[in-house]
Formats: sequence, C-alpha cells, structure tokens
Amino acid sequence: MSTFNAIDSYLEHHLEQSLSELKKYVAQPSVAAQGWGMDEAAHLVSLMLEGRGFDVEIMDTEGFPVVLGERKGRTDQTLLIYNHYDVQPPEPLDLWETPPFEPEERDGKLFGRGVSDDKGHLISRLFALDALLEEMGELPCNIKFIVEGEEEIGSVHLPDFIKKYKERLDADACIWEFGGVDYRDIPMLYLGLRGICYVELSVQTASQDVHSGTGGSIFPNAAWRLTWALASLKDKYENIQLPGFYDPILPPTERDRELMAALPPIIDEYKERYGVDHFLRGITNETELRVNAVFEPTCTICGLNSGYQGQGSKTVLPAKASAKVDFRLVPEQSPSQVLEQLRNHLDDRGFTDVEFEFLGGGPPARTDPDHPFVDLVVEASKGIYRSPMELVPMVGGSGPNHAFVHTLDLPVVTAGLSYPGTNAHAPNENIRLDLFLKHAKHMTRIITAFAEK
Amino acid sequence: MSTFNAIDSYLEHHLEQSLSELKKYVAQPSVAAQGWGMDEAAHLVSLMLEGRGFDVEIMDTEGFPVVLGERKGRTDQTLLIYNHYDVQPPEPLDLWETPPFEPEERDGKLFGRGVSDDKGHLISRLFALDALLEEMGELPCNIKFIVEGEEEIGSVHLPDFIKKYKERLDADACIWEFGGVDYRDIPMLYLGLRGICYVELSVQTASQDVHSGTGGSIFPNAAWRLTWALASLKDKYENIQLPGFYDPILPPTERDRELMAALPPIIDEYKERYGVDHFLRGITNETELRVNAVFEPTCTICGLNSGYQGQGSKTVLPAKASAKVDFRLVPEQSPSQVLEQLRNHLDDRGFTDVEFEFLGGGPPARTDPDHPFVDLVVEASKGIYRSPMELVPMVGGSGPNHAFVHTLDLPVVTAGLSYPGTNAHAPNENIRLDLFLKHAKHMTRIITAFAEK
Repeated sequence: MSTFNAIDSYLEHHLEQSLSELKKYVAQPSVAAQGWGMDEAAHLVSLMLEGRGFDVEIMDTEGFPVVLGERKGRTDQTLLIYNHYDVQPPEPLDLWETPPFEPEERDGKLFGRGVSDDKGHLISRLFALDALLEEMGELPCNIKFIVEGEEEIGSVHLPDFIKKYKERLDADACIWEFGGVDYRDIPMLYLGLRGICYVELSVQTASQDVHSGTGGSIFPNAAWRLTWALASLKDKYENIQLPGFYDPILPPTERDRELMAALPPIIDEYKERYGVDHFLRGITNETELRVNAVFEPTCTICGLNSGYQGQGSKTVLPAKASAKVDFRLVPEQSPSQVLEQLRNHLDDRGFTDVEFEFLGGGPPARTDPDHPFVDLVVEASKGIYRSPMELVPMVGGSGPNHAFVHTLDLPVVTAGLSYPGTNAHAPNENIRLDLFLKHAKHMTRIITAFAEK
Repeated sequence: MSTFNAIDSYLEHHLEQSLSELKKYVAQPSVAAQGWGMDEAAHLVSLMLEGRGFDVEIMDTEGFPVVLGERKGRTDQTLLIYNHYDVQPPEPLDLWETPPFEPEERDGKLFGRGVSDDKGHLISRLFALDALLEEMGELPCNIKFIVEGEEEIGSVHLPDFIKKYKERLDADACIWEFGGVDYRDIPMLYLGLRGICYVELSVQTASQDVHSGTGGSIFPNAAWRLTWALASLKDKYENIQLPGFYDPILPPTERDRELMAALPPIIDEYKERYGVDHFLRGITNETELRVNAVFEPTCTICGLNSGYQGQGSKTVLPAKASAKVDFRLVPEQSPSQVLEQLRNHLDDRGFTDVEFEFLGGGPPARTDPDHPFVDLVVEASKGIYRSPMELVPMVGGSGPNHAFVHTLDLPVVTAGLSYPGTNAHAPNENIRLDLFLKHAKHMTRIITAFAEK
C-alpha cells in the first residue's frame, strides 16, 4: 500500500485543519424539526464543496433545500455520496456537558450536536478528497454529492427529488451517510434498511367525554373501539392479521443467514441494556434472534392515548382515543400496500369508525452482499481497522435508501466514523478523532480502487 | 295541610337567614382531595348542629373526621340523615364567573363550590328542623346526622366506620345526601346505586423504551401486552369475559321495568348532549336503553397511557403501559369478587405480566321501591312540587349506600335540591333558591309523617 503513504501522511498532518472545518460546520445549528439555521447550513455546505472545485447548486424542494455538488475525475466511474446537513434537536439541553453548538474536543473526542450524525461524515469525506487532490492533482473518479436537509424528519421530499433529478444523479455506486464500528471496534457494512409505514389510528365516539356511571352500559367507548381494533391487527403470537401482509415478502437467503450467523452475539447485551428477560416467539438462539430482528416485518404500538391518565381514579368514558403504530417492512413490502391492507382489514372487521393518518415512511431496500462494490469497500478497509469490515445484510431501522437502490439503481454501502458511544440523537453526541481519521483514510482507498474498476 | 301553614310561613320568612348560614358554610373551603380546610369545616358542622340542640361528636377516622349528631324527638322513630362536608376541587378556576369560595346570589340562584353537592342539602335540612322546632317546640321524631368528609374521594373509611358504630347509628330510615328534580322540574326518588370496582392495569416489559427499529421484531412491547389483556376482558359485543362475572346478578324485576318504563325519554337528549349516533347493543327502545343503562354491569376503559403521545411520529417501543378501568356492579356483585375474577382471568389467559391496583370502590345496593318509607317520602312531596316524586329504581352512578342499606339495614331514599343545571363537580356550581325552599318544606313533611308511623 505504498501509494497511500503520502496520502496518509497528508491526513495525519492536516487533521487539526479538517477538525476546524468540522467545528465551524457543527457550530452552525441546522435543526430541521425546528426550522433553525437551515438555509445557512445549506450555504455552508455549498461553500465547502465549491472550495474543492465542485460545481454546486442549492436546489429548492417543497421542504428544505438539497445541495448537489459534482466534480469530474480521472476516470468515468462516478461515486455518489449521500449526506444530510440537518441535525436532531439538541434538547434536553441540561444534559449536555458542553453546549451542543459549541463543539469541544476532550479525551480524544469531539462533542457537539450533529458531529456524528452526520456532519463529521461529510467533513471526513471532504478531508479524504483534500488528500487525494493534494497528492494526485485531480480526483481519481467523478464524485457527486447529494446533501439533503430533511433526513432527521423523514426525508419526506427526497424520493421525489431523486426521481426528478435521476439523470443528474446518475452514478455507479453510492456511499451512505452513516457507518461505523461496533463494540469490538470492527467496522460494519450495512447493506439494507427495513421500510416503515407509520400511522396514527384514532376513534371518536362522542362529542365529549361521558360520566362512566351514566354511559358505561350504553355509550360507545372510544378506548374500547381502539383496543379491539388494535387487538385485531396482531395476535398475541405476533402474527400480523392484515390480509396479504406477508405475501410480498422475500425470505432471507442462505447467504443472509450465513452473514447473520457470523455477527457477534447480542442476547446478553440486550438483556443487560434493556432489562428484558425474554424475546418474542421464545427465541433463545443468537442467529435466529438476529435474523428475526431484521428480516421479520413488525407492527409496533409506539403510543396509546385516551381518557384519564393522571393519579388515582376518574370515572370517565372517553370520547376519543388514538394510537401511534409503526410497521417495519421487509423486501418487497411497501407502505402503500400496507395502508390499503389496513383500511381493508379495519373495514372487514367492523372498524369503519377507526380512522388513520399516514405520518410517513418509505419502502425497504437492500444491496446484494455479493455486489462487487461491497467487496471493494471491504477490501479498502484492510489495514486501516484492526480487522476488515464485516457484512450486515439488513438492519432493523429505516431510511431513504430505496430511492438510491431502486430509482438510481445503485449499490448502496455504508462506511463511517460512528461507534457505540457516539450518542446520536442524544445529549453529548460525539465522535472519536481516531475514527474520523480512519474513515478519511478508508474513503481515499475506496475512491482510488473504485476509479480503476 | 293546614298544619304546615305556620311552618311554611316560617320558612318563607327566614329564607335569607338560612341562606346566610349556607354562605358561611360554602365560604369555608373543604376540599378533601387537597386536604384543604377539612377540620375547620367539620368544626363548623358541629357548631351548626349544637346550635339546634344536638349532641355532637367529631369522630376521628384514618382519614377525615366524621361528625355525628343526635337529638331526641317526640316519638321513638329515628331518622338518619347522611351528608358530607367535603367538596370537589374548585379547578379550573378561570371558568368560574365568581370565586368558588365567595358564594354569590344572582338570578334566583346561589353560586359557589359545594353549594349543591352537598352543603345546600345540609343547610336546607337544618332549616327544616328550625321550622319544626319553632312551631312545635321539639322535633317530631329522633334525628341523627352522619356528616362525613370523604364522599368526594370515595368514602374510603365510611363502611368500616358504620360497621364500628352500628349501634350508635341505629335508625328506622335514611335520607340520602343528594336528590333533586329532573329537566321537567319533577323530583326524582333514586332507590339504588350501582357498585364500582376501579382498577389500574399496568405492564412493564423492559427497563427502558427501545427503538422500534431495533426492537420491534424481538422485544416484548408493553402497549401490545396491555392491548391484548384489555381485549380479553370484554368482547366487541360487550360481553365481559371474567369467569363467573354475571353469576351473582339479580335481573331487574317486573316492577323495576315498569318503573323504568314510566320515566321520561332520554335518547334524544343523550344524542344531542353527547353527540352520539347510536347506543350499544343496537338498542333503540327507550325503556330498554334505560334498563340497560343501570341494570347492566360494565367494564369501562377510563384511560389508556403508553409510549409517545405527542405530535407526529416517534419510533419507540414502549417499556410501560397502563389503563384505568372501572367496573360498575349490580346486585349482588361485589368488588372483591371482581378483583379475584380479574386476577384469575388474566392468569388463565397468559397475562401474568399484567398487574393491577385497586383504586377504590364498593358494592351496589338498592332499596325496595315498595318499602313504606318510599311511599311516605313520595306522599310528602305532594303539593310542594308541580307533580309528586317519581321513582327511579336504580341509577348508573355509585356511592356508599351499601353500608346504610346492608350494615344498618335501612331504607335509603333520596330527596334534595339539585336540578340539571346545578353544575356539581364543575365550575359555577349553583342551586336554585326556589328548590332550596321546597326541599326544606319537603323535609318538614317527611319528618312529621315519619314520626307518626
């Protein structure tokens, strides 16, 4: 790997400079949920890209703008890098040891809101480009950036944006916004995300609450209607009852199971961290639990709300009741199918009075673990981390990867600087500086190898 | 009714004096739920009784004290009058037109917290005694008062108190703390109250909430456990599933049905007031609805609480969930039976993880509509109201009448000054002064007739 000696040396000697840029970026609040500092952050991203010779455009959407950047390289290969400039709200503020938008280094880490998710990722990638440009005078391949501003609020407008600018976003592979090492300090390559269909069910049975003594025997009760409707959605053996819900599902392949079996154990950690004493369906086998955790679709009640919830008793018959429910979807399920199945199911079971609102979501998507780009990214990690990247065919969470995988038809691969103590979405969000540097080194290898494909 | 000319004249000429006493009593806050002014109110009651020549004792309980008063009369008959000196909390304060503890007369009404429920009742009854004492020089019969301080918080200590002082409370009949006219201005005589068993069900499945992407497929979900447990309690056709729940029930008699049939219609009023478009079990017949409303036991969800309940979506798998549930009971059901049935049912259905706490209650009790004392009270109402009292064999609400009916073995009869606009438990609680005077007149007739039985 002698070709990387100069590049690594550049990175090691310019770390402080890159961290300065990151601090400036983190110091710019950009809280999508609160609409705080969004235009300023998009502008800052465009300046950072322009500074590296990118053609940049800040594109309007119906929500917050998307920053597109493009620079030609030595070969015709094109790598698309996806990031987002928005961050989670900083609250609760009193739990931060130092203010969220005043980034501070301590103990080999940098603290601040968004430093990991995912401002650090963007800056580390720009840092890698700096090293390549310095040592080669040009980029090894074409690089395109798509940096959106709504990732933390569901990427509502991104799929349509990608459809609209499909040609402009044309590429050969995509690096995802996040990635990182697990508790063993081994980098994990996540290949798929479940879809999600988040709904709020609601029932209203009267114009006002009724005294339970007056109404208990004769008035419809919104809380009961909701309870029965919910209970009809999934039985207590975890079987989801929507008609056709399981039909589109592609079961995990042998290769998926093999990859899941190779992952480190989770049972003891989950029992310890979450205080649970058992898992659903009586599962006690590590691999089976890991496979179930990501290849099974779900119907999760996220919240219940009705009537009196204070101390002691209040004899009230509630006029309104609501529940938040999320369905996690696996290939080839889709939110639109689930919404249709849900309405049909409720109507068929006599719950025409139960309404629901779609609060957001998107379909699942995965990249083939045997795609050559996956192998390239794994190979590129060798020598940087204590052990090469390991493959995770699917994770339980969700994100807007469907448009990249299916609209743009790209292999989507994670690589990044997170670690288990990174506190994304929580107070004292931080990155480890060693992983920031390692991710930059990894990116130089990925881009160089990819250029020659 | 010439014997009552002088008595009525006394009442009509001393109304302002009695209202002054009522205002002083209402101005003394006595909010049991907040422990506000309780001793002072009990003391005030004792002074008012002593002022009428009663032997009075303020008796300690484990909660707020009970005031007992006793005065001998001309005959050996003993009438027990039950009242309470505690009132509901005055909140929300901003909805009161005048301050709740600064009683004010306007439009022929007196406004203030507790003026109807039930300080006005006690004062109107003392006013009746004043008239009898003035005109007769003595009471027609023995009168005992029991005035408790915990009616608005479930009369928790009253049943044991009554058991303990059974001999001392020995009597021949009982006048209940409330009563009044319906929307036609016809006084109603309520003969029974349903029992109640109020519980809070709760489930905890983990030590903390879990991300729904991580946990949805593999972690037990408290909201789902609660939903399934609740759905097992009652089916959607309103059949309560606790084993043996319906066994002790005495169905309404022909006489009960006849009395219910004679009551005024409620369907249109309920549809209008509560905005409901149908009633449970498809009932459209007035009498059937009235019978069901009070002779059917219930299982009412009063509240549901779990996970995220704010705006929009949060992808959380709740570690805790709880529900408030009240069972209204009809003769001969009892709360202790229901608690046992509930535990057995949950265990049998596999819900050993669902716990519950008993938040209060008591058994149902009724007085025979053909008891001679009932007839006496109805007869005594003639000439005072536009039409004599009508009998209601049972109402949907609950109260501590069981100890009076079964421990003391008394006929318990309502008579009072409430009316549909009285706003008990609500802001701008008030009484109509004409009904205050009528109730005092009615009481003079009841006591006089009862003395001669």
